[in-house]
Amino acid sequence: MCTVDATLTRRAAIFGGAAVAASVALATPAEASGRGLRDLTYPLGPSFPAFSPGEEAVRRTVTTIEDDGYYMQEWRIIEHIGTHVDAPAHFTAGGRVSTELRPSELVIPAVVIDVAARAARNPDTVVTVDDLKAYERRYGRIPDDAAVLMYSGWGAKIGDANAYRGTDAAGTLHFPGFGADACEWLLRKRRIRSLGVDTLSIDPGISETFDTHLALTGADRYGLENLASLDRIPRKGATVFVGLIPYEGGSGGQARVLATW
Amino acid sequence: MCTVDATLTRRAAIFGGAAVAASVALATPAEASGRGLRDLTYPLGPSFPAFSPGEEAVRRTVTTIEDDGYYMQEWRIIEHIGTHVDAPAHFTAGGRVSTELRPSELVIPAVVIDVAARAARNPDTVVTVDDLKAYERRYGRIPDDAAVLMYSGWGAKIGDANAYRGTDAAGTLHFPGFGADACEWLLRKRRIRSLGVDTLSIDPGISETFDTHLALTGADRYGLENLASLDRIPRKGATVFVGLIPYEGGSGGQARVLATW
Repeated sequence: MCTVDATLTRRAAIFGGAAVAASVALATPAEASGRGLRDLTYPLGPSFPAFSPGEEAVRRTVTTIEDDGYYMQEWRIIEHIGTHVDAPAHFTAGGRVSTELRPSELVIPAVVIDVAARAARNPDTVVTVDDLKAYERRYGRIPDDAAVLMYSGWGAKIGDANAYRGTDAAGTLHFPGFGADACEWLLRKRRIRSLGVDTLSIDPGISETFDTHLALTGADRYGLENLASLDRIPRKGATVFVGLIPYEGGSGGQARVLATW
Repeated sequence: MCTVDATLTRRAAIFGGAAVAASVALATPAEASGRGLRDLTYPLGPSFPAFSPGEEAVRRTVTTIEDDGYYMQEWRIIEHIGTHVDAPAHFTAGGRVSTELRPSELVIPAVVIDVAARAARNPDTVVTVDDLKAYERRYGRIPDDAAVLMYSGWGAKIGDANAYRGTDAAGTLHFPGFGADACEWLLRKRRIRSLGVDTLSIDPGISETFDTHLALTGADRYGLENLASLDRIPRKGATVFVGLIPYEGGSGGQARVLATW
């Protein structure tokens, strides 16, 4: 995990103050406790698990202070490793690329759907429409333009790439994701901006058809994958800043994601 | 430039609302006019000017929707191209690397020092202590933990790498930066968090000793280079979000930088 910093600082207060004022009646300790700032981003390094083994990031030291007066690394990275965005163009022909996502799409309210208990029993579980309705009964309506984020507890496996991928003997992946029905419901009934997960993919690992990717990017919306610390932000009332690197022609790319509340 | 979005949206209002409430008596149209959200980040592509020619970013298409069902690029990039951070480790042995910068250091108040008129006459000009005192007479004291950002108008040259580098016949670079005296003054008298520029380097192009880099990183503070649109945010009262990619062992790296006010 990156260093986290939930201490109330003056900057966080300035940045997140109005969001706190706008949020209402927080229901549990996980939702309450005032203003905060939390990093939802994993460090990006060569050991970060790739969806497809062999696609891990590679780094080399280009210069050193000793020899050159300054230190610098070079990276070879695909756009879909580490904490990253899936732009509409990732799965939809003619979809928008990274540089075409507007700043106002990158600073949005977040809600967290917790399926960790079920995921611990069944790695193939998905977020369902029933989960979303249960969330709304407890926390209120999911706002327009939200990032709807699945917390499955999968981050506990991040240190072991095969465990994080959930690879079985046949090579099939097993980790939780969003069901396509839930994605469609959120697109049609709640006008969301993004789906995010604490796993390698917004589709569950067993998916062969990537229906959730196709529905989301087909609706001109973007995904967020490999998010960290979703259990450390309020279930409602946080704002996420999605610091997507604006790669030219980007199918998505690395993003620094912070939450404030 | 990236797409910009200064429209007041509900998200921007939530995110930036308190910052507006906290800012006082804005002095000119550049400072006033309410809430906003502005992208300070350039698109990152192969034509983005490198400090050293030959170090430009390289991309290749790895998969396509037609052949593979999804589209993805791979990048080979140094940590110091495009809009990026210089971490303390870039110039200071034992300095902190990218993953060690805390979230609270990445969400900070910004002030803009405008030297564009002087830079148009003299590309070797630097921000001086007198410039900082003149800023404070007009806009008030620079707050603690600020990002102090030089606007020199240099972004107008971004489409021509040699013009942006200001390379002369002898191969010497010419573009504005921060004088080391001004950097020292800000570190000692104003406890700043960061220096940022709309050029390739926080030192002026003609520098051979990188005194400003050495002073800033030696004080455990970070730099921001190749910032865009610094003429489109208030001279005071904005908050910058520095979305630095947390590269392991990073000497800095690509960052999505947004301003809200």
